[in-house]
Amino acid sequence: MNACLYYYDVIVIGAGHAGTEAAAAAARLGAKTALLTTNLDTVGQMSCNPAIGGVAKGQIVREVDALGGLMGEAIDATAIQFRMLNRRKGPAMHSPRAQADKKAYQQFIKHRIELQDNLDLRQETVEDLIIDESGESPQVAGVRVRGNAEYRAPTIVLTTGTFLQAIMHTGEAKTAGGRGGEGTTSGISGALARLGFEVERFKTGTPPRLNARTIDYSKLEEQPGDDDPQGFSFLTDKVVTEQVPCHITYTNESVHELIRANLDRAPMYSGQINSQGPRYCPSIEDKVVRFADKSQHQLFLEPEGHDTQEVYVNGISTSLPRDVQDEMFKRIEGLQNASIMRYGYAVEYDFCPPTQLWSHLESKSVKGLFFAGQINGTTGYEEAAGQGLIAGLNAALTVAGKPTWVPSRDQAYIGVLVDDLVTAGTDEPYRMFTSRAEYRLLLRQDNADRRLTAQADSLGLISSERRERFAKKLADIDRGFELLKATRVADTPGDVYLRRPEVDWSTMCQVNSELQAIESSAAQQCLFDIKYEGYISRQKMEVEKAQRLAGKRIPATFDYAKIRALRNEAREKFCKVRPLSLDQAKRISGITPADIALVLAYLEAK
Amino acid sequence: MNACLYYYDVIVIGAGHAGTEAAAAAARLGAKTALLTTNLDTVGQMSCNPAIGGVAKGQIVREVDALGGLMGEAIDATAIQFRMLNRRKGPAMHSPRAQADKKAYQQFIKHRIELQDNLDLRQETVEDLIIDESGESPQVAGVRVRGNAEYRAPTIVLTTGTFLQAIMHTGEAKTAGGRGGEGTTSGISGALARLGFEVERFKTGTPPRLNARTIDYSKLEEQPGDDDPQGFSFLTDKVVTEQVPCHITYTNESVHELIRANLDRAPMYSGQINSQGPRYCPSIEDKVVRFADKSQHQLFLEPEGHDTQEVYVNGISTSLPRDVQDEMFKRIEGLQNASIMRYGYAVEYDFCPPTQLWSHLESKSVKGLFFAGQINGTTGYEEAAGQGLIAGLNAALTVAGKPTWVPSRDQAYIGVLVDDLVTAGTDEPYRMFTSRAEYRLLLRQDNADRRLTAQADSLGLISSERRERFAKKLADIDRGFELLKATRVADTPGDVYLRRPEVDWSTMCQVNSELQAIESSAAQQCLFDIKYEGYISRQKMEVEKAQRLAGKRIPATFDYAKIRALRNEAREKFCKVRPLSLDQAKRISGITPADIALVLAYLEAK
Ligand SMILES: Cc1cc2nc3c(=O)[nH]c(=O)nc-3n(C[C@H](O)[C@H](O)[C@H](O)COP(=O)(O)OP(=O)(O)OC[C@H]3O[C@@H](n4cnc5c(N)ncnc54)[C@H](O)[C@@H]3O)c2cc1C
Ligand SMILES: Cc1cc2nc3c(=O)[nH]c(=O)nc-3n(C[C@H](O)[C@H](O)[C@H](O)COP(=O)(O)OP(=O)(O)OC[C@H]3O[C@@H](n4cnc5c(N)ncnc54)[C@H](O)[C@@H]3O)c2cc1C
Repeated sequence: MNACLYYYDVIVIGAGHAGTEAAAAAARLGAKTALLTTNLDTVGQMSCNPAIGGVAKGQIVREVDALGGLMGEAIDATAIQFRMLNRRKGPAMHSPRAQADKKAYQQFIKHRIELQDNLDLRQETVEDLIIDESGESPQVAGVRVRGNAEYRAPTIVLTTGTFLQAIMHTGEAKTAGGRGGEGTTSGISGALARLGFEVERFKTGTPPRLNARTIDYSKLEEQPGDDDPQGFSFLTDKVVTEQVPCHITYTNESVHELIRANLDRAPMYSGQINSQGPRYCPSIEDKVVRFADKSQHQLFLEPEGHDTQEVYVNGISTSLPRDVQDEMFKRIEGLQNASIMRYGYAVEYDFCPPTQLWSHLESKSVKGLFFAGQINGTTGYEEAAGQGLIAGLNAALTVAGKPTWVPSRDQAYIGVLVDDLVTAGTDEPYRMFTSRAEYRLLLRQDNADRRLTAQADSLGLISSERRERFAKKLADIDRGFELLKATRVADTPGDVYLRRPEVDWSTMCQVNSELQAIESSAAQQCLFDIKYEGYISRQKMEVEKAQRLAGKRIPATFDYAKIRALRNEAREKFCKVRPLSLDQAKRISGITPADIALVLAYLEAK
Repeated sequence: MNACLYYYDVIVIGAGHAGTEAAAAAARLGAKTALLTTNLDTVGQMSCNPAIGGVAKGQIVREVDALGGLMGEAIDATAIQFRMLNRRKGPAMHSPRAQADKKAYQQFIKHRIELQDNLDLRQETVEDLIIDESGESPQVAGVRVRGNAEYRAPTIVLTTGTFLQAIMHTGEAKTAGGRGGEGTTSGISGALARLGFEVERFKTGTPPRLNARTIDYSKLEEQPGDDDPQGFSFLTDKVVTEQVPCHITYTNESVHELIRANLDRAPMYSGQINSQGPRYCPSIEDKVVRFADKSQHQLFLEPEGHDTQEVYVNGISTSLPRDVQDEMFKRIEGLQNASIMRYGYAVEYDFCPPTQLWSHLESKSVKGLFFAGQINGTTGYEEAAGQGLIAGLNAALTVAGKPTWVPSRDQAYIGVLVDDLVTAGTDEPYRMFTSRAEYRLLLRQDNADRRLTAQADSLGLISSERRERFAKKLADIDRGFELLKATRVADTPGDVYLRRPEVDWSTMCQVNSELQAIESSAAQQCLFDIKYEGYISRQKMEVEKAQRLAGKRIPATFDYAKIRALRNEAREKFCKVRPLSLDQAKRISGITPADIALVLAYLEAK
């Protein structure tokens, strides 16, 4: 029997957070795209916490949106609580975060995918990669799916998340599967091994889910959302979804004792799991061990949606055995009678160290094969979405015979992300932090459109609505500056007067009522441009300097202890390797461009 | 390691249509109930068509509702199109049907389950049954779940649907799994075999799903819903959900030729599947073979919800290979460019012939083990829900040491259903028809509450809201009769006058405006009671007669050809067996009580 054949320009495998952005981006560019996924009912599913954004991650979502991606609009349409984190800090630290109605989010993403022209979403399980080895270097030709059919395409984007050779652990109990209630896939891992890819294992975990009906909220602290919720998407004028509060409770000594007494039964400690988990998203057993002096840890009870009683317990990810999970809640205020609906577990899975990729996320060894998302060793929906968009975009550009494009480190967190991944790889599940971005004053959530939308437009990534809105905003910003410059406050031009700490936009509006016509998002840009001009221009100079000085030499006797801001890990590696140039320093695994920037600054200062 | 133990009164395995009703009914009765299911995201999932109700099935839904079940309220809250079928026929044939927003329906059911007191919904995969064999006869003790834990209870309701040792077929391609994108479970089948249960195989099928964006609706006939949509639940005053139309298209000779040319590749015809499928829900390949003279078959394009582009193609269930499915649509008006999102498939699965059960759905051989839904050889969400409610109710009654209860054949379609199943078994997937109910004039959709709600109340199945509403309705009906009797139209009492064919309720309201105060559902009962009094009282007499005459003898030379209304299948079986009494006739497999009623009527007439 001959296999059925289907022909496409781009095939995306897996409709998670990376795959949906990849497929949508490729299709927006006009590539004939197939998005193949094992179950159409889990397109865009949140495997773990029902929330989007957070510190540094929120910035990525804004960038994905500025590039025409799905994530921002999806969360704006389905969020049940918005919070702008770090509001009291400077604008570079402002990070939007929102709780999602998890199923509504999932359905929104699926619906958008269904509506996308040039894109076929099909329920298929990919079992193998088809590679053409006749040329000089191997080149992808397509994929084989369950049920004797093949999809042929010159480019493939692999976004299978945690599903490759996945094993879930709850205490001593092990089950094959990449997500609770779902299976695993092994064929692709085999194909990657056959093609000579290095494949390693990581692990991640998820907390138990409780039934809200069985939680005693009267004993808990309420955490409301923002009064003036602000959406993620540059297309969202106003958040209209109903907002609900979360609640807070705490672990205590009795819980910690229980965990300590059962540590030998935790897969991470019993030796049952050897792979590395996300250090910055530790399980409760990790927290109890690593922060032994803390007598309590905060837990957020996050509702999973409007129309469900399922509650996600943020902060208590665990793979302890179920009897320990049962007992744990009996000892926590407000949760004494809580009914567990799903137990926490850890999952171990294959990933491909991303140093095997170019920064546009194409494999160095197999032409046309792109990787994005958790398969690259990252963790997080936002990191997955950002990579997905880059991979899908570049697959489509490749098919069209156009040059690839990735944002640079001074242009986007997404640029930092892909550069970190392909340059240094990662020895633990990689998540984004503001500290990874050496030019974070430039990479703010508020200006993501100004950083990226024009470029996105020239690539063909955005809709005419977005183009027009953005043009209007730029015009508004220009108009704002014009008006400010034309305004005089006791002989001082408005744009200078506004620099004073005690002066804000509303003051200026009182002076010149025409300024009221400037839309608030444009007004904010004028304000930040003026208020932070010093910082910003300094950082822009640093960008230039860094480019100039990348080849600068380092004395063999250089004393790294003097650079106090350097991370311990970086200091140790530098002392060990003793690099003789910044370029060499850069290539050391685990060294981030932020580390380099510090060394450079120090060399410059001398 | 000791297993974790959890103690309950009733354990329900599988949260499909049977399991959710079973668990909710048991919990309403106050039994401490656990509902265990492999994936919490598929609770109440519709495996196949996104619709509830239909001829005879709609009546079951009304009965489930009258008994306090979930299905009626769920569909009323989430329907996207209501149609009362057979509106032009008498009220016994009126059958409500509604298209559902499939995911919204699923979430509604899950949410209700989460909110139910005494009920713990938990994501668990049951791997084995635990049986206590120490007593005279085996008795259930609990279940073993994946991950070293046991649930203990004196009663278990098994509602695993099509998931036992399931194999899906699309042409030559086979995959293990009970539903597209999901897995199968085998442990329970092993346990049933070990316990000596007879286990057989059935099959069923599902059509492909298309993307609405790729359908040319301009070429299709529109099928709108009712202008005055009427809900399923006796608690629904008014349907408020947004209604959308469906569309109609047809197969044609070219499609039929294609199918004929590929019949040897259809698993049912190639010998790859041997098990029996639902005769009344045939695949398109079956239709083409069985109705060879028909030049077209009608197809309904049913949207799967408001927020999705997935479209269910009702009428084209198939397990033909995917290339044939691809080609089929290219030849159908309006679907020439349609993109298939999921392919059609057939699924073969284990079921337990239900003759092994008492009519309250408990196993005859293992005490405390109840079976409900597709595992009993039925097909359909409604049939599953009806059985689930009966099984859950009786499990809870058993735990409480109370007598079991099942409705009789003259009381409910559900009574017909369980009696048919346990008495005659079934040699094909059993679905309900009005013809299976010999007293269908009594078993109308409009009077399900009058048939069942008082009983449900005495069993503890219903809420106080339902009790009060029902009492109010009964009072209204009484008041209606009182008013009618007190009204005179030219000396004729109103209740007599209303018998005239040309007189309707609004005529009477004009005569006596006080009648306007009677709520329409109560008015309808007064009207039907009066209009159909003759038929109804005749059928009531038949019920009594049948009870009296069940033992009546049949002459050995009886000429069945004379009973023209007899189904061909029944006539053949009677001629072959030549039963000598009605009792014996009844026990012939495949003979329905409706057949017996016909023979009885004939014997009586002579
Ligand atoms: C248990 C768990 C806990 C986590 N905890 C956190 C957390 O606390 N914080 C955090 O930020 N992130 C967490 N994550 C990570 C987060 O879920 C992922 O980073 C993100 O979902 C990755 O997106 P992705 O698109 O790479 O993969 P996924 O979202 O996993 O999507 C992969 C898709 O590929 C499909 N697929 C797999 N194999 C095949 C195949 N052979 N053929 C076709 N389709 C296939 C799958 O069905 C799925 O739709 C967790 C993940 C898991 C599983
Ligand atoms: C492909 C297909 C086509 C169909 N076509 C039609 C049709 O055209 N018309 C029609 O009326 N009906 C059709 N049906 C039948 C209809 O779907 C069923 O009759 C109905 O869903 C049966 O309900 P149930 O509750 O018995 O089982 P299901 O609704 O199947 O529910 C079974 C539940 O048990 C769970 N489960 C299984 N094993 C375990 C375990 N070991 N541990 C824990 N949980 C477990 C499953 O996850 C699932 O939630 C079709 C079914 C299928 C699969």
